[in-house]
Amino acid sequence: MTQIIEKTDVKLQAKQAQKAAKTLAMLTTEEKNKALLTLADHLDNSVETILKANKIDLERGQEKGFDEAFMDRLSLSKERIADFANGLRQVAELEDPTGEIQSDWTLENDLQVQKITVPLGVIGMIYEARPNVTVDATGLALKSGNAIVLKGGSNAITSNKAIVDVMHEALCETAIPKEAVQFINTTDREATQQLFTMKEHIDVLIPRGGGALINAVVNNATVPVLETGVGNCHIYIDKEADVEKALTILINAKTDRPAVCNAAETVIIHEQWFENHKDQLISRLQEHNVAVHGDETVINAVKDAEKAGEADWANEYLSLDIAVKIVANLEEAVDHIDRYGTKHSEAIITEDSATANKFMMLVDAAALYHNASTRFTDGGALGFGAEIGISTQKLHARGPMGLPALTTIKYLMHGNGQIR
Amino acid sequence: MTQIIEKTDVKLQAKQAQKAAKTLAMLTTEEKNKALLTLADHLDNSVETILKANKIDLERGQEKGFDEAFMDRLSLSKERIADFANGLRQVAELEDPTGEIQSDWTLENDLQVQKITVPLGVIGMIYEARPNVTVDATGLALKSGNAIVLKGGSNAITSNKAIVDVMHEALCETAIPKEAVQFINTTDREATQQLFTMKEHIDVLIPRGGGALINAVVNNATVPVLETGVGNCHIYIDKEADVEKALTILINAKTDRPAVCNAAETVIIHEQWFENHKDQLISRLQEHNVAVHGDETVINAVKDAEKAGEADWANEYLSLDIAVKIVANLEEAVDHIDRYGTKHSEAIITEDSATANKFMMLVDAAALYHNASTRFTDGGALGFGAEIGISTQKLHARGPMGLPALTTIKYLMHGNGQIR
Repeated sequence: MTQIIEKTDVKLQAKQAQKAAKTLAMLTTEEKNKALLTLADHLDNSVETILKANKIDLERGQEKGFDEAFMDRLSLSKERIADFANGLRQVAELEDPTGEIQSDWTLENDLQVQKITVPLGVIGMIYEARPNVTVDATGLALKSGNAIVLKGGSNAITSNKAIVDVMHEALCETAIPKEAVQFINTTDREATQQLFTMKEHIDVLIPRGGGALINAVVNNATVPVLETGVGNCHIYIDKEADVEKALTILINAKTDRPAVCNAAETVIIHEQWFENHKDQLISRLQEHNVAVHGDETVINAVKDAEKAGEADWANEYLSLDIAVKIVANLEEAVDHIDRYGTKHSEAIITEDSATANKFMMLVDAAALYHNASTRFTDGGALGFGAEIGISTQKLHARGPMGLPALTTIKYLMHGNGQIR
Repeated sequence: MTQIIEKTDVKLQAKQAQKAAKTLAMLTTEEKNKALLTLADHLDNSVETILKANKIDLERGQEKGFDEAFMDRLSLSKERIADFANGLRQVAELEDPTGEIQSDWTLENDLQVQKITVPLGVIGMIYEARPNVTVDATGLALKSGNAIVLKGGSNAITSNKAIVDVMHEALCETAIPKEAVQFINTTDREATQQLFTMKEHIDVLIPRGGGALINAVVNNATVPVLETGVGNCHIYIDKEADVEKALTILINAKTDRPAVCNAAETVIIHEQWFENHKDQLISRLQEHNVAVHGDETVINAVKDAEKAGEADWANEYLSLDIAVKIVANLEEAVDHIDRYGTKHSEAIITEDSATANKFMMLVDAAALYHNASTRFTDGGALGFGAEIGISTQKLHARGPMGLPALTTIKYLMHGNGQIR
């Protein structure tokens, strides 16, 4: 049985993290990198222990009757653990985002001003089933000089605990205090809620998971939140869209990995293009087993299409379903995206670059695509090296967040008695 | 009597702002600058109207028995209105923070990526008595391409309304839709609370005012908040501090403008320095009418000093009072600041640069000073041209916030059919 930790312990853990963060912030890049490599080696050497723990979660998951996709995300293997370790080695290779002098200048009174990047302090990570987040988030936090408080999903608690135990053991051989990685070892929801308001000890909360989890954090947290992930992404096929480009991009964005946040959920089509190319469109969607939900025009034209309602426009399917909306012009497309989009990734397919530019300026989202798939909104794909999540908010960080998103700045002023 | 606006109208106003923000975001720098100059001219030409409205607020303030400082902040004059207008002219001179390509690169598949700065969208400004915020915040918002929803303090509502009326009239002569400036014309607190959760229409809330206002916003808003202002600032006088530098800086930071957020509220003194220089310290403080509240050591040494309690350490005095704490070493000073500081501005006075650097790395604040007054934490003083507030949070913007704090970024991807 999972031990229920007392209410006060979460606070104690956050305090310990905060204290450890001070030590961590003073370490050199080399010390942090060496620690990450040590963590990686320990994970490689602890495959059996971790798999044994994972088996407990998997058995419990089976009893609870979770679906295949869920069980797959929960399931670890020798290869997956090797991937975790290699992920840490890659983070060790990345540039240290802290200690960078972003700008410096001298005032007329000779006061010297430096604006430098520093760690945020303590990161609270609240996530669902995937145990890889336990390792990935820890690696990114430590590299950027931050302590981390991990609150993973209850269904992966035994696996996560085993992984953290290995990381703690490893940290004892490094310059990083093991208290810099805190694991909230309880399935008690109250523990999560405590994290929401621990402003004195936690600098930022990062939720990773489904919409319900993210909303719970955003709506209840007084700690600042880096909102990630929900992507109700649209592809707008303009009247000047090249047919082959449009269909190739649509199929890729919808079917390559339907369950990820940068997959397309709705295609908006100019009425003229739809009129001219609907047969090709429909046969291509059918070929890839994509189920069509559509507005009036669409259900009149497409056999087996279901009528799309508010829920179809507003939510991610995360499956081989697509909502299809026909519009008379660009403005109607933009209005629809304004209403239902989640400011994640939006694409226009057109050969008219003026229309493309207008779309890209008018639509309010982290990533705007002209003639390319929304699937590129990803730290790895864009060359950021690693990502802690994809921000759908506008403050601090927008779109894929690499190591710099885990830093803040300080102004350092050196004087010789200046007063005002 | 002030008309109470219906509950739904606040939402309507926010929606109008959001719509206007789209138009505003497409304007050129020249169009925005021209509009700011028109606003300035109209303010200059409307002095009488504004003063007449201000008189109503002042009379009501007198009836309510507000203190002199409050009445001074509320009070307008021809000169103050000219300052508002000139402030707008200065903002017109500043660089446009939007449309800047922060970086661009091409992926191996030839997808072109641009990271550009864009307006945040709609700014919700919640502030207390000073009517200058009505003009200053509007100028900064419009220059950065943002619409603004203004919710000022109820005691200045007639003045604020008159100022906004003038600005609306002026905007009709410009490319900026007048709906880009919304004024919540009610003293109903519920209207403010509605702004807290209007995530679909407001992109950021900026509270300007006292701690109670800021906490109310931070604790209740689901809209992201740019937290500003509370400065419980410390000066640490190290054992190696130069006596004259220490006293000059302390007196400046405490007495130059005691009511502002970058004024010093507590002085922490190394026990050796205190032992050697307490007489000079005390006579200098007395000379400037500064009342001393102190720990045990201080009240034993200083005649008339009051015992400092938790409230003295934790709160801003914003008056000619100072809390004095004696410590045995740097660590004790840092611990005290960790516990009571508001991460605003913190100073160390010492001739030992190693100690200074340690202090500046260990203390978690927006601005760290070595041998200079905390009073320089100010957008104007640091050369930012104008400021929308001083952020005491770590995400998005820290310290004095100029125009760039009112922007976010977009990734623009141009392709020719790229899929993943």
